[in-house]
This record gives sequence, C-alpha cells and structure tokens, in this order.
Amino acid sequence: MSDFRFAVITVSTSGYRGQRPDLSGPLIASMLAPLGTVIESLLIPDDEERIKAELIRLADKFLIDAVFTTGGTGLSPDDRTPEATLAAADRAAPGISEAMRMKSIEITPRAMLSRGAAVIRGKTLIVNLPGSPKACEENLSVFLPVLSHAISTIRGEGSHNESHTYK
Amino acid sequence: MSDFRFAVITVSTSGYRGQRPDLSGPLIASMLAPLGTVIESLLIPDDEERIKAELIRLADKFLIDAVFTTGGTGLSPDDRTPEATLAAADRAAPGISEAMRMKSIEITPRAMLSRGAAVIRGKTLIVNLPGSPKACEENLSVFLPVLSHAISTIRGEGSHNESHTYK
Amino acid sequence: MSDFRFAVITVSTSGYRGQRPDLSGPLIASMLAPLGTVIESLLIPDDEERIKAELIRLADKFLIDAVFTTGGTGLSPDDRTPEATLAAADRAAPGISEAMRMKSIEITPRAMLSRGAAVIRGKTLIVNLPGSPKACEENLSVFLPVLSHAISTIRGEGSHNESHTYK
Repeated sequence: MSDFRFAVITVSTSGYRGQRPDLSGPLIASMLAPLGTVIESLLIPDDEERIKAELIRLADKFLIDAVFTTGGTGLSPDDRTPEATLAAADRAAPGISEAMRMKSIEITPRAMLSRGAAVIRGKTLIVNLPGSPKACEENLSVFLPVLSHAISTIRGEGSHNESHTYK
Repeated sequence: MSDFRFAVITVSTSGYRGQRPDLSGPLIASMLAPLGTVIESLLIPDDEERIKAELIRLADKFLIDAVFTTGGTGLSPDDRTPEATLAAADRAAPGISEAMRMKSIEITPRAMLSRGAAVIRGKTLIVNLPGSPKACEENLSVFLPVLSHAISTIRGEGSHNESHTYK
Repeated sequence: MSDFRFAVITVSTSGYRGQRPDLSGPLIASMLAPLGTVIESLLIPDDEERIKAELIRLADKFLIDAVFTTGGTGLSPDDRTPEATLAAADRAAPGISEAMRMKSIEITPRAMLSRGAAVIRGKTLIVNLPGSPKACEENLSVFLPVLSHAISTIRGEGSHNESHTYK
C-alpha cells in the first residue's frame, strides 16, 4: 500500500474572494485519497509570485511527493499558473501535460488551449490541472495510472529495476 | 458575429526576394476572412530580429487579436521563426502547436519536424504555421474551431463563465 | 544512398561502472547502420556537465549529423540528460519528442514520464531516447522514417524544394 504525501492548490481569484465555490480542489483530493494523504489544501488567488512561493514551500519544507494545482492554466490575462510552476522547477516533465492534453482533445478541442505544465522540484512532482471540475477529472484520470510509479522513481526507489521501462 | 483583428506574416527569404510566389499568406487570410479582418499582411525574410520586431509591433501598437506566421518553422539553418516567436512571448500556449502537429502526423510523419510555437504577448495570440500551403491549411484547420474562444478568453471576456471548460 | 555520420551516447552511471551491460547503445547503432556510420559510441555516467560537453564536442568538432542519447530521461534524481541537451541546444525540435511519446503511450502509459528532448546544435540533430532497449527501439522506430529528410534539411540541402512539405 502506498501512502504518498499530496498537496492540492486551487488557483482562483474569484474562489479566493468567496465568489465561487471551489469544486475542483475537493474533487482532486477525493481522487488522490486511495493513494495517500492530502497534507495541505490551499485556495489562493491568481498571483504568480504567491503560487510560486507556495510550490517552493510545499516542495522544500513539507516534502510533498506531488502537488496538484487547478486553475490558472488558460489564456485569460490572469492565468499564470504555468509560469509560476516553471519558475519553481528544477526539471520539466512535458510528457505528462502533453498526454493529458492529447486525451482531453478527444473530448473537446478546447483542451488544446490548456497551457498546463508538469515539473519536478527536488523530490516533488508538480502537475498543473485545468480549472473546471470536469476537465480536472479528465486530466487527472490520464495521469493517475502512472502516479505511483512516477513518485517511486522521483524518490530514487528501484531506479535500476529493469522492469522500469521508462526510467 | 465576431470581428477579430488579424495579421499574417509570411517568413520566406526566397519569397521576399521575389523568387517564389507567396501562396501560404493569402491562403491563411482567406481562411480567416469569415472571422474578422486581416489588418496587415507582411512578407519578410528569415531574419530572427526582424520577425521578433514585427510580432512586437503588431501586438503592442496595432492591438491585433491573433498573428499567424507561415514559414521558418523547419530544421533548415535559416529557420528561426519559433525562436523569434518565443523571444516575443509573455506566455507559452504549447497545446496549440502540439495539437496541430499530432493531427498533421496522421497525414505525414514529417510533421514531427515542424518546430512551430504558439504564444501570447499581451492580448495577442501568435501562432506559427508551417511554410507550405498544404501544411498551413492542415494546421490552421486544427486550430480554427477554437480560435474564437481563444481570443475571447485572451481579451478577458467571459472568463468566469462556467461553460468555459478550459479557462 | 545516404551515408550519414552518427554518434550514440549511453548515459548510465551503473553501466559506466560496469554494473550493467549496455544493451541500448548497440541496439541504436544497429538500427542506424543502414543509414550511415556510427563514428563514435560513448558510455558515460549521469553527469549533466559531462553529457553537455560530449554533445558540444560531437556537434562542433566532429560534424556529426545526428547524436542519439539513451538513458537519463526519466524522473530519477540522477536523470539529467534532457537538461544537458537543452543546455547544448541552439534550437528546439519539440515535435520529435512529442511524436515518440505519443506513439509510446499507446504501448505503455509510463511513456508520458519520459522527459526526452530533441534539439539542433549547429548542423547536428540531437535526440534523447529512453534508457531501456525496448523503449529505445519503440521511440527510434517513430523517428527513423523521417531521419533522412531531417538531416538533409539541417544541412540546408533542397530546402527550397516544394516537395518538402515541412521545411
């Protein structure tokens, strides 16, 4: 049984102001529950510096295995979650975002407008998900089957195991 | 009815010298016509600084909603349109280029060699298309169904509308 | 008949220490054999500076048409081949890596975790392949059909040929 440490950050200025309920954050948490514990759930505004600071704090101080963000990945002037994520990154993992977009495009072509990034900072994986609950669920469903393997690899566990086709 | 403001830049040293007719620029313009007005059409050589300068001018001074470039996205030594585009960018929108390539690969595997980028500068979307008319048409056809939504979102219109799955 | 100049770099600390046989390097070489000559085959540890230095040397001094690396593209703490590759790059060719991942994901979803990059330095193409022989073969098979066209284009040959759909 895995017991990973997760964090979920909802990025939404209107949610932060209480003008809109945060459905996506709790949805992500419920999808992660079978795999570990959500140590922290945050609701913050679309502020690039704030997003970056939270990502760094969670990765460096709280040793979170994976942080999932929701919101701020679109084309709106305020959407800057990918920029904050890339600014906090040591290494990029572009295949995760590519795979989520490619699957989502089969459902709606608007998925090509999602600018979400996936990166590694230290031993923490950071994955941007879209803002809407439906898109969140679709995207996370694409990544979930490989989440456990991803975290084990980032931790440096079993990295010389031949069965790890994509080390 | 939408009435977007477009610009089209053909990047081709041989076209600029009059050694080759520019078929791709007019083709793009004709595909965009139902959605708005092509404010400016340019034919410039494969000069990275020149491309960058035109993109910045069109975005900052002319408030163009979307600039489409054609040419200079390949592997040739002169091909530097993506570099100029990224240098002019505030934010990247990688899913647009990914989607165009993935669709085009179904037609020809050579599409994987296209290095085109898609970015945002201020409130202007910039999308690189390949040089050949056929590839231009294939790529733009992938993006066209979401163009209107993309521009509305960049303008900050209706960004809190729940129907915007990918904000 | 083409006679391209290739180099193959196996990036593996355990392979370098003789703790694991290098199966992927020879496999890549055998797949390239029909298209040209493998001028140099290297086995080096997961050392970002070393990888970068070898890529630069092969591109600048040895005028290699294409360098293929295997290993170091995953999420392990030591995996830094893409970072070394991007640091040696003049221009990115993201569509090559995207296409390899998309095809591989059909075989195993773990392929989305591969962080491999594809870039150009001078007139040398550099393509990162995964570490396992099976994944190497799958990935290289995706790119091989366009390799010859890619190198001709980078060399600046026939770049004004209308049949080059993606120049």
